[in-house]
Amino acid sequence: MGKIEITPIATMRSDLPTKFGIPRQSGLVDELRSTIVFEPEYRNPDALRGIEGFSHLWLIWQFSAAVRQGWSPTVRPPRLGGNTRIGVFASRSPFRPNSLGLSCVRLLGTEQTAEGTVLHVAGADLMDGTPILDIKPYVPYSDSHPEALGGFTDTAGDFLLQVEFPQPLLDLLPAEKQEAAKALLSHDPRPSYQRDPERIYGLPFAGYDIRFRVHGDLLTVIDTQNPQSAHATTPTMALSEIAAAR
Amino acid sequence: MGKIEITPIATMRSDLPTKFGIPRQSGLVDELRSTIVFEPEYRNPDALRGIEGFSHLWLIWQFSAAVRQGWSPTVRPPRLGGNTRIGVFASRSPFRPNSLGLSCVRLLGTEQTAEGTVLHVAGADLMDGTPILDIKPYVPYSDSHPEALGGFTDTAGDFLLQVEFPQPLLDLLPAEKQEAAKALLSHDPRPSYQRDPERIYGLPFAGYDIRFRVHGDLLTVIDTQNPQSAHATTPTMALSEIAAAR
Repeated sequence: MGKIEITPIATMRSDLPTKFGIPRQSGLVDELRSTIVFEPEYRNPDALRGIEGFSHLWLIWQFSAAVRQGWSPTVRPPRLGGNTRIGVFASRSPFRPNSLGLSCVRLLGTEQTAEGTVLHVAGADLMDGTPILDIKPYVPYSDSHPEALGGFTDTAGDFLLQVEFPQPLLDLLPAEKQEAAKALLSHDPRPSYQRDPERIYGLPFAGYDIRFRVHGDLLTVIDTQNPQSAHATTPTMALSEIAAAR
Repeated sequence: MGKIEITPIATMRSDLPTKFGIPRQSGLVDELRSTIVFEPEYRNPDALRGIEGFSHLWLIWQFSAAVRQGWSPTVRPPRLGGNTRIGVFASRSPFRPNSLGLSCVRLLGTEQTAEGTVLHVAGADLMDGTPILDIKPYVPYSDSHPEALGGFTDTAGDFLLQVEFPQPLLDLLPAEKQEAAKALLSHDPRPSYQRDPERIYGLPFAGYDIRFRVHGDLLTVIDTQNPQSAHATTPTMALSEIAAAR
């Protein structure tokens, strides 16, 4: 069958510049807010008429970071601990033919901006800069199936870590980003095969680098840095300095 | 942003060769059975490992019949009677950028065939021959939102016609197709702007042409023809002949 040419209609603007920390599914971290900016040729407010009557939207997008790696017939889902292989079409893995992603997000509202009408959404699992190929309303009567059997996703519960984010480090983040940062961390951003309690991880988030360790079920933030303002006046503070300052 | 090249992974084999009679959303006509056949390069049974643990699947596909007509910023959904314009991104209309379709289908099972492992599904709203671009499991914890607000789709109920399908005409269809035919007709396949009680419509279904009229809320089948066997021995019978034969 012939190839099909697709033109991205919009771009995701999110606080997650890399795949590290991206929630494993949409909707898991509702605190995470992001913005959909249309490409110039699709900046037509008429095309959004009536969209605010819907509480949720579908996004079809491209796993742009996975395209080069191609697809694999079997994958190892993080929810299964990264050791069990299942078929790629029985998974939502990025390493699939055509690298298409599908996410349900909550629509917070529209806003008129210098870049046209944008959509503010909650709970997206898209990296900053992800090309969006289509936006559709979530239609509960055909899309909602609470009785559906979710295969391996039914049994592999989403385990949450306890997060210790010292207030002075948390306060380095803008107030409106703090809840999302804590929620992202509670979902355990570590690769599923890494369990070294001494290792220091860095979560790039909203222009900051949130550094943490995990011992057992407890994640402790040890530093919050703003690399973009290394030579500027925004405060950067490590836990050791906080302790020393007390 | 650059264009993206997509390769269809599979094709839908359904009993609906044209868009006439296609259910307005997936899941509306569960009696409708169809089969997904993978393209040769994706006929790898490993890629389906574990899929039978899921009761529902997502299909991302191309509205192949709508591609040439391009997109429109506003559309007139059949559910609103075909007179009210809403934004294309607030609709599931085919006339959208990239002509991408999204459907939730119920997985009936897999089968090994001469064309590789195929998927049998219920409730699809895809025309025969539709190119399928991706298949994903339905994950209830992230995809099911029974509380979601469905905009105009919440208020515009799906009105069902009463169907009078005389038994001798119904019996011309294979037994396993009869329930689907009646269900399709009850969903009123007429274009929403056509309400002429004298007009005879033909629903092409499973190789047959089911001819009917609609008076008010009552749809009456007046003929069932099998054009593919016009010169063969399969019986073709019109209602007038049945009446005369009594």
